[in-house]
Amino acid sequence: MKEQVQLHKDQFIDELKQFLQIPSISALSEHKQDVQKAAKWLANSLEKIGMENVEVIETDGHPIVYGDWLHAEGKPTVLVYGHYDVQPSDPLELWETPPFDPVVRDGKIFARGATDDKGQLMIHVKAAELLMKENNGKLPINMKFCIEGEEEVASPNLSPFIQNNKEKLSADAVVVSDTSFINKKQPAICTSLRGALALEIKLKTANTDLHSGSYGGGVPNAVHSIVRLLESLHDEKGKVKVKGFYKGVPEPAGDLRKEVAEIPFDEEEMRNELEIEELYGEEGFTFNERTGIRPTLEINGVGGGFQGEGLKTIVPSEAVAKISCRLVGEQDPSEVYDRILEHVEKYKPSGSRVTIQKLIQAHPVSLDSKDPMIQKAADAYEKVYGVRPLFPKEGGSIPIVEVFARVLDAPVVLMGFGLNTENLHAPNEHFHLENFTKGIETVCEYLSDLS
Amino acid sequence: MKEQVQLHKDQFIDELKQFLQIPSISALSEHKQDVQKAAKWLANSLEKIGMENVEVIETDGHPIVYGDWLHAEGKPTVLVYGHYDVQPSDPLELWETPPFDPVVRDGKIFARGATDDKGQLMIHVKAAELLMKENNGKLPINMKFCIEGEEEVASPNLSPFIQNNKEKLSADAVVVSDTSFINKKQPAICTSLRGALALEIKLKTANTDLHSGSYGGGVPNAVHSIVRLLESLHDEKGKVKVKGFYKGVPEPAGDLRKEVAEIPFDEEEMRNELEIEELYGEEGFTFNERTGIRPTLEINGVGGGFQGEGLKTIVPSEAVAKISCRLVGEQDPSEVYDRILEHVEKYKPSGSRVTIQKLIQAHPVSLDSKDPMIQKAADAYEKVYGVRPLFPKEGGSIPIVEVFARVLDAPVVLMGFGLNTENLHAPNEHFHLENFTKGIETVCEYLSDLS
Repeated sequence: MKEQVQLHKDQFIDELKQFLQIPSISALSEHKQDVQKAAKWLANSLEKIGMENVEVIETDGHPIVYGDWLHAEGKPTVLVYGHYDVQPSDPLELWETPPFDPVVRDGKIFARGATDDKGQLMIHVKAAELLMKENNGKLPINMKFCIEGEEEVASPNLSPFIQNNKEKLSADAVVVSDTSFINKKQPAICTSLRGALALEIKLKTANTDLHSGSYGGGVPNAVHSIVRLLESLHDEKGKVKVKGFYKGVPEPAGDLRKEVAEIPFDEEEMRNELEIEELYGEEGFTFNERTGIRPTLEINGVGGGFQGEGLKTIVPSEAVAKISCRLVGEQDPSEVYDRILEHVEKYKPSGSRVTIQKLIQAHPVSLDSKDPMIQKAADAYEKVYGVRPLFPKEGGSIPIVEVFARVLDAPVVLMGFGLNTENLHAPNEHFHLENFTKGIETVCEYLSDLS
Repeated sequence: MKEQVQLHKDQFIDELKQFLQIPSISALSEHKQDVQKAAKWLANSLEKIGMENVEVIETDGHPIVYGDWLHAEGKPTVLVYGHYDVQPSDPLELWETPPFDPVVRDGKIFARGATDDKGQLMIHVKAAELLMKENNGKLPINMKFCIEGEEEVASPNLSPFIQNNKEKLSADAVVVSDTSFINKKQPAICTSLRGALALEIKLKTANTDLHSGSYGGGVPNAVHSIVRLLESLHDEKGKVKVKGFYKGVPEPAGDLRKEVAEIPFDEEEMRNELEIEELYGEEGFTFNERTGIRPTLEINGVGGGFQGEGLKTIVPSEAVAKISCRLVGEQDPSEVYDRILEHVEKYKPSGSRVTIQKLIQAHPVSLDSKDPMIQKAADAYEKVYGVRPLFPKEGGSIPIVEVFARVLDAPVVLMGFGLNTENLHAPNEHFHLENFTKGIETVCEYLSDLS
């Protein structure tokens, strides 16, 4: 397909530019119309290439775009998931060219959403277009598109939509291109995402801050109390001390450890880049294991008392901490939440009133790299790139992946074409056009191979 | 003197109102001229009553007002210290009447500075005026006034001024009215002030916050590290664990404990008022002892990572804590600072880079309640109020008191006429006029008795 892709390359890039010009920032209400516009542009795009039953489905938030082509009888069905919304673009002054005025420089297209996720999403649309063009309007397999406009605001409406539309969305594989290569030469299919549980702890001791002269040493200090409580969460070696926290965490088996060990990691380079004196974490595990297949409990922030310039001699009466866990295996975020509540109840210093609020939760997901739908994707990469993908375990969470896998009972194939260096969520976001065109080739190979 | 005070009461209150009308806020540069104006008004006031050598002495900040009358040969010399500057007045909307438009309601005069310290300072000016009027322009003792305009900004220029003017300021007693009664019916002469040492600890782990998905569990977390460090400062029972911290802290002797025990304290009332579930502190000591004659190390504030609304899943790279100690007896703030540095060096978790900045330090001061200059002040209170003062140990610090006591080698007599309920540093500050007039009587009695 290389020739066909090259033949249409300029047209594809022009269309991608059109898509990138729409500032579909889902987090900002002043861009609501732009998000709508992007949904319509995408729906129109799907119709133009020959997709059927194309809909812009309204939700309580931004719409979901659906389209399908289901005439490959007896052949597997692939559901493509992606998102047409983008992150906010500030700080604007750090962009070399305006975020919604896409420009090609050095073989990269610069714009907000270039790699996350409009560029990667368009790979599938253009692959479908090419396959149809080559086969008199027919696809080698059945195909569905389910593209949301709320990924950057934690997908509040997609999860119930999937639950309520199991039949409509049913597929043999869910294909997602929203992840990254290991590096420019090494493609990757992520097969594990950690789950998440985030909460906020508020601690109060008195109804007002008190003068540290008149009261210091005689009343509880909310900062002392939260420090004691937070310190109780880990042991000396960084293991989480919350009773029951590790329930459901699998003993890392040989195969998994092997796949993790294959992911290149240069400790010295990372330490130098981040100016970290030494790494840290659970004993007996490598950095890739600690961040990929082991759970963690991190305090994301703490605040209490006086934080301005200089000095205010108070005994603080309130303190707040934000905590988030990354979960793996069979860890259940609701259960972990209950265990943390019990821990706090037990370890909060006397004289402290504590309230806890759950902020988010998401199940972890593990995908079997041996699944044929994943192995065939790996074959396609190898054909196009000449290198077989690795199977990294991602420390972050894409909560909707677990929902797709569980509700549709289908493997999710995380066919990423991005690079970690492409400034996603940052100024000067870009996407390597080589991966755009080779991505289209790879997806064409994959879908053809599935037929 | 009661009659004479009553005779001139209206005039005295009118003059106090004039003084209170000047917004001499030392902390705000836009009020620099007002501070100057208050200094001149006060100097003029001292000259009018017959004080000599009156000067407005410029400093690097706001001026010091000096005046004396030294013709009582063979009699003791009393130096009056006070301050003519005031706290800022915001939040303005909470004042029932404007802060610099003094109003008398229910026997109280309402204005910023009414009790802290213009009203209490004027007690001494008016007492001197009355005594001179009664004795053909003569005072029964020698008198010096040294009044600063920077008390509310930590007296940066007074301490060197005292050091450089030992002779000029030398006295048999330094009299200060800037403290409070125990309650409306119970006068007090404070005989102990805790010292202070305040510092800021900054801790860094990496050069940027990191994504808690990709890095969580594998790199040091600055909030975890500061929590561990801060938790190491106290043992389970609230005792300070910094090695050498308690050096110089006296074993509380019988007399001292007795004086402290005499200060009324209603634990239940305090707990209810502040909504504190239970008190807290060093074992074996009462609340008054813990806050009056025992040292403490309080974390005044802590901050690190994300503190906004909702959630940001980061591994924080920086955290800051503010710490202040209150010191007693022979504790030396410089030495305590060194001990804390050693402690931090020893207990900072690996992978943390810590920088420490000293913010303030002040020596503690203990005054002997048996000193005749203090006992005679107690006699004067008893004559006027019918109740002998108690001798509370104040948990707060008035650093300049220790400088006066040490440099001039003279007892400091903390003859307070305020009440804790008079909203000092808060909206609707006021001063009970009964304590203004009785204060003048008390000071007249005291100075006459010293002759």
